Amino acid sequence: MSPDEQAIRALVATWMEATATGDLDRVLELMDDDVVFLGPGRPPMRGKAVFAANTRAMAGKVEVHGSADVQEVRVFGDWAYAWVQLTVTKRDAGGGETTELTGPAMSVLRRLPAGQWVIFRDANMIAPAK
Amino acid sequence: MSPDEQAIRALVATWMEATATGDLDRVLELMDDDVVFLGPGRPPMRGKAVFAANTRAMAGKVEVHGSADVQEVRVFGDWAYAWVQLTVTKRDAGGGETTELTGPAMSVLRRLPAGQWVIFRDANMIAPAK
Repeated sequence: MSPDEQAIRALVATWMEATATGDLDRVLELMDDDVVFLGPGRPPMRGKAVFAANTRAMAGKVEVHGSADVQEVRVFGDWAYAWVQLTVTKRDAGGGETTELTGPAMSVLRRLPAGQWVIFRDANMIAPAK
Repeated sequence: MSPDEQAIRALVATWMEATATGDLDRVLELMDDDVVFLGPGRPPMRGKAVFAANTRAMAGKVEVHGSADVQEVRVFGDWAYAWVQLTVTKRDAGGGETTELTGPAMSVLRRLPAGQWVIFRDANMIAPAK
């Protein structure tokens, strides 16, 4: 496995861990300033600043724990894509309702000039588990 | 716009047109043998042969018409990705029920040794229009 693929797999693991612990600053370090998040039934979410604002608005309301099973990583110079299968549990804070979600996500990543890989485009296809 | 981006935009337009006219052979020419189609609420669909079998099983049952608004194409040598916003109408054959679907799709494409671009990974996030 190439060092780039290792770095991208580590990014995926860090994303899941930092999301579970609510460490927004660490999550933000894993995405490009001009990131776009795509998903079904909602308009594209553009930019790190919007992601940060949306996440802060949900802080303390929902806990998100999950795991990502990396299916594929391919690197093309300073660009790459990754396909993962996600299993996520969302729980309303204070012991509220729990939702199990599962499905694929496919991200395009780029390598910043300083060398670090970040998510540039993200297609999230998780849906309620049947 | 580069010739590669033009070719990929033409591929998207051909895909929509060939799907609308039910020209499966032409659609199959636009994907890699080892293509994978990802979407919410269903397992990954792997390979051109499976796509062909699934499409043939639906032949004459559903008509699919739509348009694709290309948001972005980026080319990295022999690989690329494209993000499009789709608007699709599915109609049961014989004047049956109509469903309007809308949302993004993000594809990873590769250039075959002969020079032609094909879809290699596809993340389809269309959902019923609200």
